[in-house]
Amino acid sequence: MRVGIAGASGYSGAELLRLVAAHPAFEPAIVTSREFAGRAVKDVYPNLPFDLTYTELDVNALAGLDVVFLALPHGASMTIGAQLAESGTRVVDFSADFRLDDPALYPQWFGKEHAAPSWLGKWIYGLPELHRDEIAGAALVANPGCYPTAALLALTPLLANGLVEPNGIVVSAASGVSGAGRGLNAGAHFSHVDGNVKAYGFPGHKHTPEIEQELSRLGGDDVRITFIPHLVPMTRGLLATCVATLAADSSRAAMSAAAHARYDDEPFVRVLDDAFPETAYLAGSNGAHVSYAVDERTSRVIAVTAIDNLGKGAAGQAIQNANIMLGLPETSGLLAGGLYP
Amino acid sequence: MRVGIAGASGYSGAELLRLVAAHPAFEPAIVTSREFAGRAVKDVYPNLPFDLTYTELDVNALAGLDVVFLALPHGASMTIGAQLAESGTRVVDFSADFRLDDPALYPQWFGKEHAAPSWLGKWIYGLPELHRDEIAGAALVANPGCYPTAALLALTPLLANGLVEPNGIVVSAASGVSGAGRGLNAGAHFSHVDGNVKAYGFPGHKHTPEIEQELSRLGGDDVRITFIPHLVPMTRGLLATCVATLAADSSRAAMSAAAHARYDDEPFVRVLDDAFPETAYLAGSNGAHVSYAVDERTSRVIAVTAIDNLGKGAAGQAIQNANIMLGLPETSGLLAGGLYP
Amino acid sequence: MRVGIAGASGYSGAELLRLVAAHPAFEPAIVTSREFAGRAVKDVYPNLPFDLTYTELDVNALAGLDVVFLALPHGASMTIGAQLAESGTRVVDFSADFRLDDPALYPQWFGKEHAAPSWLGKWIYGLPELHRDEIAGAALVANPGCYPTAALLALTPLLANGLVEPNGIVVSAASGVSGAGRGLNAGAHFSHVDGNVKAYGFPGHKHTPEIEQELSRLGGDDVRITFIPHLVPMTRGLLATCVATLAADSSRAAMSAAAHARYDDEPFVRVLDDAFPETAYLAGSNGAHVSYAVDERTSRVIAVTAIDNLGKGAAGQAIQNANIMLGLPETSGLLAGGLYP
Amino acid sequence: MRVGIAGASGYSGAELLRLVAAHPAFEPAIVTSREFAGRAVKDVYPNLPFDLTYTELDVNALAGLDVVFLALPHGASMTIGAQLAESGTRVVDFSADFRLDDPALYPQWFGKEHAAPSWLGKWIYGLPELHRDEIAGAALVANPGCYPTAALLALTPLLANGLVEPNGIVVSAASGVSGAGRGLNAGAHFSHVDGNVKAYGFPGHKHTPEIEQELSRLGGDDVRITFIPHLVPMTRGLLATCVATLAADSSRAAMSAAAHARYDDEPFVRVLDDAFPETAYLAGSNGAHVSYAVDERTSRVIAVTAIDNLGKGAAGQAIQNANIMLGLPETSGLLAGGLYP
Repeated sequence: MRVGIAGASGYSGAELLRLVAAHPAFEPAIVTSREFAGRAVKDVYPNLPFDLTYTELDVNALAGLDVVFLALPHGASMTIGAQLAESGTRVVDFSADFRLDDPALYPQWFGKEHAAPSWLGKWIYGLPELHRDEIAGAALVANPGCYPTAALLALTPLLANGLVEPNGIVVSAASGVSGAGRGLNAGAHFSHVDGNVKAYGFPGHKHTPEIEQELSRLGGDDVRITFIPHLVPMTRGLLATCVATLAADSSRAAMSAAAHARYDDEPFVRVLDDAFPETAYLAGSNGAHVSYAVDERTSRVIAVTAIDNLGKGAAGQAIQNANIMLGLPETSGLLAGGLYP
Repeated sequence: MRVGIAGASGYSGAELLRLVAAHPAFEPAIVTSREFAGRAVKDVYPNLPFDLTYTELDVNALAGLDVVFLALPHGASMTIGAQLAESGTRVVDFSADFRLDDPALYPQWFGKEHAAPSWLGKWIYGLPELHRDEIAGAALVANPGCYPTAALLALTPLLANGLVEPNGIVVSAASGVSGAGRGLNAGAHFSHVDGNVKAYGFPGHKHTPEIEQELSRLGGDDVRITFIPHLVPMTRGLLATCVATLAADSSRAAMSAAAHARYDDEPFVRVLDDAFPETAYLAGSNGAHVSYAVDERTSRVIAVTAIDNLGKGAAGQAIQNANIMLGLPETSGLLAGGLYP
Repeated sequence: MRVGIAGASGYSGAELLRLVAAHPAFEPAIVTSREFAGRAVKDVYPNLPFDLTYTELDVNALAGLDVVFLALPHGASMTIGAQLAESGTRVVDFSADFRLDDPALYPQWFGKEHAAPSWLGKWIYGLPELHRDEIAGAALVANPGCYPTAALLALTPLLANGLVEPNGIVVSAASGVSGAGRGLNAGAHFSHVDGNVKAYGFPGHKHTPEIEQELSRLGGDDVRITFIPHLVPMTRGLLATCVATLAADSSRAAMSAAAHARYDDEPFVRVLDDAFPETAYLAGSNGAHVSYAVDERTSRVIAVTAIDNLGKGAAGQAIQNANIMLGLPETSGLLAGGLYP
Repeated sequence: MRVGIAGASGYSGAELLRLVAAHPAFEPAIVTSREFAGRAVKDVYPNLPFDLTYTELDVNALAGLDVVFLALPHGASMTIGAQLAESGTRVVDFSADFRLDDPALYPQWFGKEHAAPSWLGKWIYGLPELHRDEIAGAALVANPGCYPTAALLALTPLLANGLVEPNGIVVSAASGVSGAGRGLNAGAHFSHVDGNVKAYGFPGHKHTPEIEQELSRLGGDDVRITFIPHLVPMTRGLLATCVATLAADSSRAAMSAAAHARYDDEPFVRVLDDAFPETAYLAGSNGAHVSYAVDERTSRVIAVTAIDNLGKGAAGQAIQNANIMLGLPETSGLLAGGLYP
């Protein structure tokens, strides 16, 4: 399979290239970068010792490939994604540009109208654990955000089985700084991040509406969440700690049973019964660990997911989606264990 | 003032010694350590270049000092604290042993009966921003836990002014690993902590009841919280992100006004209007930064506090308490800015 | 190929298992651990989601496998390695127990006589870039130490071509703390390692004699080096900075030419012409980056190598050796790019 | 004493301000910053909760103060330092602009002619352990670089007593990234620095000539060193590992005696007899730890110094110099122990 990656010099794109190069059925045919066009990949990313050169983005060239991954900044995919969609090319888009079905959410959350609203709703939200069957027949997949992936994996068994109240959910999450990308700013300086934890982007983080969209599908109309992301001093890894109120007749046992029923056949999601998830075990992998703990005194559950934000939270999940779209074994190229320690 | 530190070889005790040695009115007269008795402090802690030698704990010797700090493991202070109390010595205790007024909470949260229940209620809960006047006249002060300090500083202006519902509060907090002490265990190995975030101790973390005790005093009977601590890959620093539901007629403006009214004259607490607190700015200091942000969509506030867990969360606050007890300027020995970067 | 790993619960053994599980021709048949015998691997190492259980070490069981890796503490391999050697089993040993040809070096550097001195000299020193042909025909390979791998890769082109004086070489190296293993000690506590750099183990680090043995083979009799290891606050990665005096007629151009001639066809070693190696690019990979810079004022070269201490410095190199021993493509299972960022 | 800091928004300047504010005899009267003029210090550096506002640099205003610290970029001090010198103001300059006596070294090492060569030689090289008496009577002090401070403290007792050969010395050093300043570049991004060690700036690092100048004064004409700096993943801290060849009749005992004789009365330098220095113990302090270890096999010593690059390597040493210049106790404002853990 000949594969294209548009935006292969950002962190997500580079991680995708790392995975594509090790994939038994994929060959990286085109890798684009506006900043590094003309330069060898291995000079920009010395960890990727492949004979590849960055090129400028050319939609026509990409259109001829078996699958194209768009790892472009939010907003940039609206046009290019629509062009590739029209050409019939299989596309997995990393941005939020096609994740939301309701066009009205774009001005509300992203500050401007969608450039190709007629395409909304024609892309599948690419969380395989929720939408595997639709992805299997799809040409257009909107790869979920990192925080939504974690939050949804934790909450899905609970909402799908009516085990928690759909309202009042709090998602407090922590991400490594690679989630903010390669861009330079004072907040990314090592001397600033080292020893530093902070909340940011509350309220109004752009990942909020896609979490709400998917939870609403699962749990009833119009779920609203309180979402608070944090930055922590590490490069990779994302932890979502979701707090919800128990529904009547709910219990830790029921939640555990629901989670095992949902995930025990999933290749990448593991339910931990006796431990809380730790991000360090997932580095570089497409895995997700989830756990459930109940505070009887306050009738609340914490549902926790750990992932690699660049793995299951971005590039790994994109490979998983492409495998499904192309009819390959879903785990192709994704079997490596996490890099630990 | 001649000062004693019992347990001066743990992280909190050593930080306290660092502050005592730099205090204009204090002289470290006795520093005890079971593990290191007989050894020079500067050989155990080369960062503390003072001519001091650890001794075995001797209550009678401590009883003659102007103030004694107990930085002993939880449980160990029950007896020693009571003995010093009987001798009339001024004591600041770092443990939870005298923080709770209700003896019934000890078996519930700590797994055994209190050894000196008659002394409970005679110690002042040493959060100066809540109990300054009582501390001023007290000989016995129970220094708050690190998480409670942060959570209470964030929530006090809200509950004291009826700006949030007292029930349903979620405190999601993150601490550097020094909070778990010097002890060796697999979870403290650098190779494990590096790149790792995890929740732990939920439900049932021992800091829960003291947060509830103080919030109940402020906000009405029987406040119950959901408290979720996390470990993050840094040595010092603690962030508490508290989520509460707005009361009727509440607003961000009202919260901000309440916080400024309460804290603008406090020497160590700063209200940030336009930024979220970051732990890196507080390292080594007794400062606390708080902020308030409201999500109108879900009628919730996040109230965030950043501190140094060993500073305002332990040793710094102990010095602040001792200053108040002894009639010294409250900021004596605590004016250094945080170590940043 | 059925593979055994003795000592698969240490960091090197676990990294080896990660690589074996992803290897196209290998199947992990037996994984032993004294500490964790009877426990599922994925419970001890949640990053390794494989259906494997640790067993006690049984030499007879191991003897029937296609290749056995010994990732045991130094000293423990002497007996077991000799037993497997007698059985004719292919063995790659991670320890220093069979790296040195001269039995007299063991009491000198390791403090006791070798337990199976007759086997010394029958093991090949498993640095493929030096001894590929011998490894190809060997059943017994002594996998090099992490520091020696880095130092030898940097210095080999210089000594083999007479471009530096063989005497007076200084190797100053820095390793992440995973190199010291899983064991708990005060020096491995996160709060101690964070923000900390130190030299250690000078003089007399146990890796010294194998560097000298191999340099002496290359550069003439009796090379003696000054070797100074350091610990730096990171988990993986190793940098060796080797300082040597230029031989007459030497030059940076000659060194660069020699390095390219030696390494350009090597699958895992890359010569950097315009940059110094950085450990971050090699994490999780079997790659090595080398560079050469000359100070004309002092007639000295610094030859630098970066590797992952657990990759090319241990488990990756062991796989490379096994591939060569078994006649597999040398890069099998080792093609993944480094995990960066 | 009214104090001015020009360039108080860089890392060194901000650390200086932290120390000045806690100094019993100093009052920060003027703090300048081109980037932040008009802004409150505590908004730029929330760790510095002082009522101060950055202003534009005004030489005339600075000239009226008791002492002025110049924490400006290299090159910028040439003119301003000369202007302040002419006004008779006491100045401590952080840059290399007045550290070297020989004007010819500036074009050689810094790429351009010195702008005020007549002032060279009128500034004292501000390493108190070498030049205390001259500093005491001086108005103009050139504060040493961080690497030179560490290297010179290690090597001084050896060269001053003829215990090592003055030629062939190798200085391999490692610094935290705060040493490179606040500036944004790809090499300072947390995701890049994390897990990364690299050499840089070899040959030709700008700190080389001042090390050579001072060593030549101590050890005979024309000492030439091989200096190799490294960056390691931490914010503060600097370790210099210096390798030298033993002179005839030298020994570890002689070195230890020389070091103790030289440093035991120094307030900030501690000779470690049984341990290697570790940077973590010096964070935020003006301390330096040195040690000596001998490799009899190769007749070499490693002399190691650990400091905080922003402390004894910059701002702490500047305070020490100012104390000496002003006749204050040399330790004023510098007695705090290092922040550990």
